[in-house]
Order: sequence, then structure tokens, then C-alpha cells
Amino acid sequence: MVILGIDPGIATVGFGVISCEGPVQRAIQYGVITTPPSLPLSVRISDIYNDALSLIDTFKPDAIAVEELFFNTNLKTGISVAHGRGVLLLAGVNSAVPMFEYTPLQVKQSIAGYGRAEKKQVMEMVRRLLKLDAVPRPDDAADALAVALCHARAASSLLNNNGGHSVCSTI
Amino acid sequence: MVILGIDPGIATVGFGVISCEGPVQRAIQYGVITTPPSLPLSVRISDIYNDALSLIDTFKPDAIAVEELFFNTNLKTGISVAHGRGVLLLAGVNSAVPMFEYTPLQVKQSIAGYGRAEKKQVMEMVRRLLKLDAVPRPDDAADALAVALCHARAASSLLNNNGGHSVCSTI
Repeated sequence: MVILGIDPGIATVGFGVISCEGPVQRAIQYGVITTPPSLPLSVRISDIYNDALSLIDTFKPDAIAVEELFFNTNLKTGISVAHGRGVLLLAGVNSAVPMFEYTPLQVKQSIAGYGRAEKKQVMEMVRRLLKLDAVPRPDDAADALAVALCHARAASSLLNNNGGHSVCSTI
Repeated sequence: MVILGIDPGIATVGFGVISCEGPVQRAIQYGVITTPPSLPLSVRISDIYNDALSLIDTFKPDAIAVEELFFNTNLKTGISVAHGRGVLLLAGVNSAVPMFEYTPLQVKQSIAGYGRAEKKQVMEMVRRLLKLDAVPRPDDAADALAVALCHARAASSLLNNNGGHSVCSTI
């Protein structure tokens, strides 16, 4: 199974593609889509949409895992990021790939075993789980790999425990 | 010139299509796109995107005027609405129609001559300007007609006052 993890954004969208064969997960590709603030919002979201379609077309994921937005301070940033997240979800729908969403808390819980784990701990666990030499950079790409790994674990838990509880919800 | 005005949303998106010939504006069509909260977010935004594409294909607007989001209370609602606004902008980009945005204050100022005008006053001015028998319903459709009228005035002001100030900004 191939999973595309996405850390939504407007200036920077993290993506991470992993493959899962049984309990073994490995990174296929990761990186970021960036859009400069100097461009009109409509152009930025169009670039994000087209790049997401290209990623889906290239890696043909069986599932897309998208992090939920969590904002408690900057409303203006939250609104911009949500514009970007909207077109990322649309790219998934228009490519007919099943999508799942996870809160930042669920991702931390799944990867580091503790919902309030520090970012550094989560990054280090991503490195270990994917057997990488170094923590993936930039952070948004590592976050995207984390949400992909979170889905791999939730999906595996669903397969192994028929009827069991899963942390994922379909978007 | 045909203008499509949009009042963005996720449960209800208002739209209003007007034609402008010189100083005369008339309503061609108005209404709402609705999506039930029982559907997954990805399906709702996909429905909004496809309905927006259909509207653009049917009425072939020369410009699209979209209201800016203004939230100061419910962050959760703001985030959902911004997902919807993102795909509405994408529909405009993918149809190659120029888009403009206006704040609620700019719309009120343009239509009622006063940025803090009450909703009722704005609705009544929309009715008068478009020579309708009654205030358009529902409110979201009337809001969309108001933003379309706002753009008609800004565009006309740009044409009549070369180099003059306009309230509009390209998205």
C-alpha cells in the first residue's frame, strides 16, 4: 500500500509518500510545495492544486492522509491555510483516492505514543520508523511523513482488529 | 458585461449574476448552492466546485466578484468556509475568469453609501438598484448580488476615472 501524507498550508505544503508492506514502512519521496506570498491567492491555490494532482498521478497512492488544521492564535493565517487545504482535498476527490484526516494530537499519539510529545521527538521517531540516516527536512515534509505513518498504523490496526477502534476518520 | 457575485460558504454559497450596460444593472439569475453537513467535507467542497464550474459555464461571466471572509468569533466555522472559498476561487482560475474581492465593509459602502449600514438597508438597496419587486431571497443570494453590484460600480469607476482609486483588488 502506498500512502501520501499531507501537511496542509498555503506558503508551504508538506508531502510524504511511503510504502507499507506488512509492518515495514519506507519513504518513497518527500518534500514541499511552496508558493510565494507575492502571488495572488487564486494563483497560489491553483499551483497547490496542480502540484497535488501531479503528486497523485506520479505516485498513485492507495490512500491520502491529511492533517487537520489546528489554530488558536492567528485567524488570518488559519483562513489562508484552509483555502489551501480545500483545494488539496479537491485534488484527492478528483483523483478518486480515499482520504483520511488526523488531528495533530492523533499523529503525535500514534508516532511517539504520547499526544503531547515534542516536535523533536516526533521527528526522531519518523527518522527511526523509516530507517533514514537523518531527520527529514524541511519540517513540513517530516510532518507529512508523520501523518502518512499515522495512517499506516491506523489502517493496519483496522485490518488486524476487525471492528476495532481506529483513530482515523474519512474526510 | 456579466458579473457573477459570490458570497462564499460551505453549507450555503450565495450566487448572483447581473448584467451591466452603462449605468443600468439587472439581475439575470440568483440563488444558492447548498451542501448538507451530513456529507464528508471532501464531498461538500467537490459539489461546490462542480456547481461553481456549471454556473460559470452557463452564464459566462466577464468577471467574478467574491466577498472576503470576515470572522471574529467562530474559528471552526471560518475554517470550514475557507475550505469552500478555496475551491470557489479555483473554479474561477480554472475557467480563466478575472476575479476580484471585496470586504463586507467595501460592499456596504458601495451599495448603501455607509460601511456600517445595516443588512436590511443593503438588501433594500439591492432590490432598488436591480428594480426587483421584492428583496431577493435567501439572504446569501442577496449578499452575492450586492458584491456583484459592488464590482459593477468599482469597474465603472475605473473606466470613468482613468487612474482613479478603486475599492477592488484582484484575488
